[in-house]
Amino acid sequence: MNVIDAMNRRRTTEYFEPDGLLLSRDEIEKLIADACLSPSEFNLQPWRFIVVRDLARKEILYECTDHQEKIRNAVAVLILCGDSMAFQSVDDMARSRVEAECLREEEVAEFCRLVTARYEKSKWERALLAVRNPAFAGMSLMLLALERGIASAPIFSFSEEAIRRSFHIQPRFLPVMLIALGLPSTHGAQPSRGPRVDTKSVVFHEDMAAMEF
Amino acid sequence: MNVIDAMNRRRTTEYFEPDGLLLSRDEIEKLIADACLSPSEFNLQPWRFIVVRDLARKEILYECTDHQEKIRNAVAVLILCGDSMAFQSVDDMARSRVEAECLREEEVAEFCRLVTARYEKSKWERALLAVRNPAFAGMSLMLLALERGIASAPIFSFSEEAIRRSFHIQPRFLPVMLIALGLPSTHGAQPSRGPRVDTKSVVFHEDMAAMEF
Repeated sequence: MNVIDAMNRRRTTEYFEPDGLLLSRDEIEKLIADACLSPSEFNLQPWRFIVVRDLARKEILYECTDHQEKIRNAVAVLILCGDSMAFQSVDDMARSRVEAECLREEEVAEFCRLVTARYEKSKWERALLAVRNPAFAGMSLMLLALERGIASAPIFSFSEEAIRRSFHIQPRFLPVMLIALGLPSTHGAQPSRGPRVDTKSVVFHEDMAAMEF
Repeated sequence: MNVIDAMNRRRTTEYFEPDGLLLSRDEIEKLIADACLSPSEFNLQPWRFIVVRDLARKEILYECTDHQEKIRNAVAVLILCGDSMAFQSVDDMARSRVEAECLREEEVAEFCRLVTARYEKSKWERALLAVRNPAFAGMSLMLLALERGIASAPIFSFSEEAIRRSFHIQPRFLPVMLIALGLPSTHGAQPSRGPRVDTKSVVFHEDMAAMEF
């Protein structure tokens, strides 16, 4: 399926068919592995995925998300987390980049120094690190899922605190979004795609000064 | 091009061919419009794109990004911004969702109340709003660009303050990332793709408790 077709066909699925799809552990891990081909800043890959498939665990997650029925009916729900401290392993990362010939040995020390300084000194940079990169992987994952016949729904309404407690998420990791995966239910109409605003209202050429408020 | 092929073939392009590609204003706007088919929380579409193509403006942007040569050689550089106050137009958004039959008239008031309360009371939720959604659009845009023969490079190292000042970005908007677009240079080798960590180290089943530190 072409990328543009995947973009056009992707919908946020509201109703999943309970028990409608079998997704093996391997299939889910492959989906995640492919989504991890997304870029990340300094290739730090600051993303983690908690795969929730067990009925009882889905019930706990359902409680963390204002009782969204799609959590119960999805075959699996992924909790995407960002690692705000991923920069601490920049040495290992630099090492593997040298091995892959995308960084020169003599650049390692300066690279590590720059990356460490950037995140150590700024809590905001650590937040960006933990949010924007998992969002890349999440977007890619939804498109890849569609191509494999798996419907998805990104979920943003959840209690961070409840999810942290229930799924034992350490402070350094930040729950960024959930993605429910499954087969769309044929009972009851799925809502239409949300309308998009005119592109002209979100694009500015050369400068944002011309915009009106 | 299949989604998985796009994922496999996408690279962060380090060297662009100066004047290597003509991209019309229409082509860029179409690319952005298609990327905006990405999902967003409550369909708020809190993303803005500043398209920088003018030579003098690219030079200014080059100054804002630690002198990254790819800014100069890219045919266009997009500044992706997030709108932390997008929830303020939730009424209009709800209205258009009713017209598109993805929200019922009787749900509008409660929907608007919930969305407004969520972001009004939390600066952190506004930050998430402004970061994760533009990241979705950015990821989609890079895959769509590849499918159209356009190479890309996401850029995260820039001075937020300098970009704000130079491109007149209001406080409510947050510069999330830059995306350079162009044709890869054939002079000098592009760096290889950064190696990916083993999927096993980023996936957890049912719970994160088992992880070791």
